[in-house]
Formats: sequence, structure tokens, C-alpha cells
Amino acid sequence: MTNINLEKQHAANAAAMLIKNGMTVGLGTGSTVDYFLKALAKRVQRENLQIVGVTTSFKTAKSAQDLGIKIIDIDDAPMIDLTIDGADEIDAHMNGIKGGGAAFLMEKIVAKNSKRIVWIVDSQKVHVKLGMVPLPVEVVPFGSGKLMAELTKHQLHPTWRKSNDELVVTDMGHYIIDLSLKSIDQPYELERYLDGQIGIVEHGLFLDVVDEIIIGTATGVERLLRSHLQK
Amino acid sequence: MTNINLEKQHAANAAAMLIKNGMTVGLGTGSTVDYFLKALAKRVQRENLQIVGVTTSFKTAKSAQDLGIKIIDIDDAPMIDLTIDGADEIDAHMNGIKGGGAAFLMEKIVAKNSKRIVWIVDSQKVHVKLGMVPLPVEVVPFGSGKLMAELTKHQLHPTWRKSNDELVVTDMGHYIIDLSLKSIDQPYELERYLDGQIGIVEHGLFLDVVDEIIIGTATGVERLLRSHLQK
Repeated sequence: MTNINLEKQHAANAAAMLIKNGMTVGLGTGSTVDYFLKALAKRVQRENLQIVGVTTSFKTAKSAQDLGIKIIDIDDAPMIDLTIDGADEIDAHMNGIKGGGAAFLMEKIVAKNSKRIVWIVDSQKVHVKLGMVPLPVEVVPFGSGKLMAELTKHQLHPTWRKSNDELVVTDMGHYIIDLSLKSIDQPYELERYLDGQIGIVEHGLFLDVVDEIIIGTATGVERLLRSHLQK
Repeated sequence: MTNINLEKQHAANAAAMLIKNGMTVGLGTGSTVDYFLKALAKRVQRENLQIVGVTTSFKTAKSAQDLGIKIIDIDDAPMIDLTIDGADEIDAHMNGIKGGGAAFLMEKIVAKNSKRIVWIVDSQKVHVKLGMVPLPVEVVPFGSGKLMAELTKHQLHPTWRKSNDELVVTDMGHYIIDLSLKSIDQPYELERYLDGQIGIVEHGLFLDVVDEIIIGTATGVERLLRSHLQK
């Protein structure tokens, strides 16, 4: 196992220990979450843990069900007790960029309806400022070429997300545009701009959302807690 | 013909006279626009007007093509010269609510990419304050039950848009929630709130968007011009 995968697994295992009997658990999307699902499935089996999952992508729904984790629709869950998700990048303010896996719209909706949110990441995801990874925006197909032109004019360096030369279509039927920003100096201002753009359904900036970040290391984990965050 | 339909026709005919040879024309959606399409098609035939249309709904696309108006995709139009659309309600500040026909997302995208926007309405659409008609919001299906609960808590009196007991699905694959507000005192504040809600793709508030409103009357039309608007 590579170091990175070991770090992911350390973070995932630590997160699995947070799950308690009777919880409704939000299940994120991505490679680190895949480790979490396996660790959680083991606990469900060994400890006969009674939990239900709410998923953030069709992919996670399938993986969870294959592993024997019971899944319910978000609208059938009164509230999600704890959501475990990954992130593509985090900064020292516990803000993050998500969406490499194109599931950030559903992830954001699940996050919004969660009492507590924990991200699990490997150490390479930690940066001083956000923007090293592309910031994805999910857009309505109609008129998206025009929106692309607007984002270009606004110097946000947009590119279409493609797979095998075809535009990627999200689980919700939208396209993804990735913004290559290198360094995001004003994340809140950028969020306001993107929120106000017609045709943008959602973006991958997650500001002031997460309660705890578990960072996997070679030997264990480090934890960032919002309650300890310097204002 | 009822008085209302006569008013709609007067506004529609006046709008058709604004179209010039060579224009790319944005074509709205709704019963008043249907009159406009017929009036425009007549001019195209009689005067051999060379125009192309960009539509705001699959319904309008079909109507326009049946009438012999050439349609192009919004992303193939360099810019839309003039868009003619209806509105469900307008106020004295030339703000409006649109979306009774569930096409407001595409209408907003077309409006955003238009050099000039003209609305055509009958006299019953004119109110002192917005809110007499329901304000529609277009939402992502995933988690929309949770969003409904949030809007209820925020006292926005939401109801699902249904047709024959089934949830209405828009041309873009989303649901519609109608907000029964009676009177919108702070439209800009409401816009900011709705723009910031996760899961809301767009809403039917059109603030500071239209350049001219043509109001049909029993005998002709009245015109409101943004350039004449008191600040």
C-alpha cells in the first residue's frame, strides 16, 4: 500500500470509530470514503451496529449496498446525525474544495442536513490557501457555452470536465466546469459571485461547513476541530 | 375574444413591430408570447424578414418551428439582440415574477444573454408590490423534501407544483416549488436568500432585468421604459 493510501485508511478507520449505534450516517463520495465504507461495514457486521446511510452519489449508494450497509433516501431521514466525507483540498481555516468526483451538489445537500460533518483526508490535501486543485461548478446544460464565456471573461480559467472526450454529466443531469485558479485569495467573495450566476447550480467551495477534519498520517491521524479554530 | 386576450394581443403586436431584419430574437414562453409568435411569423412571411430565434422552452421551440420561425441553439448565437417575453406580475420598479409556465430558468439564461429585453403583459399583471402571484423556485430533486422544510421554517409558504397529482418536472429535469407570499416587501433580500440556498437552481424573481414593458390595454398599449424609471 502506498503512503497516501495508508494515510487515507488511517483517517477512514478513525472516522468509522465515530459511528454510534442508531445513527443516520451521511456517506460521502471518493477514494477515502471507500476505505471508510469498508471499515464501517466491518463494524456493522462484527458489532451488529444498527445504522442507516444517506448517500451523496449513485456510486456510493451501490458500494454501500454491496457492503451490506442499509441506505435510505435523504427525504426519508428525519435528520442526518453525522456525515463522513472526503475533500480535495483543505486550508487552515477548515474551508475546502470538493468535487473531483463530481458529486459535490449532492454532498452539499447532505452536509446542509447533517448535525455534524467530518472530513477525512490524506496529508497531501492540506494547503495554506485553496485553489491548487480545480474548483468545480455544476451548471445547467442550456446556455452553458455562454456561461463558459462569462467565466472566461471573469478570468476564472474555466475548462469543461470531460471523460473519454464526452462532457461529464452529473447524477443530477448537469455539466461540470472546472476553474483553475491556483490561489483563491477571497473565497467568500468568489462564493457570492458564483451563487449569483444564472445557470450555476452549485460550486465546490465548502466554507464554514465542516466540524472536524481527520488528516491521515503515516503513523496515525491528526485532528482539526472547528471549536478550536482561531477566529 | 375576452378583454384580457385582446390586451395580450395588443402588447404582442406592438412587440412584433420591434423586430428588425437580421436580428437574433429571444422567444419567451406563455400565452402572451404565443400571440407574439403568431404576429412575428406573419411579418416573417409577408416581409421576408431574415431572423433567427432562441427559445426559452421546448414548448416555444415547437410553436415557433410550426410557425416557420428558424430556431438556433443559444450557444450557437453570438448574442441575442432582443428578447420578447411575458411576465406573471410586474411592479412600478419594473421588477417582475415569472415562472407560471415553469420556464423561468431558461428564460433567465436567455435574458442574461440579451442586449435588450422587452416584456409583454396584459393590464392585470401590474401590481404595486410583487407577491400576489406565487413565486416559483426551481429545485434539484435530491433532498428537495428537506429544502421544502427549510422554506416552510423560513415562513415562505411553499407548495409543490403538481399536474394531475404528479410533481411537475421542468425541461431541465428539476422540480418547482411555489412560494405564496402575498406581498414581497424586500425583493433584493429575498433574492439573496434564495440565491444562497443549496438545492435551489433558480427562482422566478427578475429584478433590474427588463428594459421595456409593453402593457396591453383595451385600445392599444402603454409602455414603461427603464431609462425613464425614477431612481
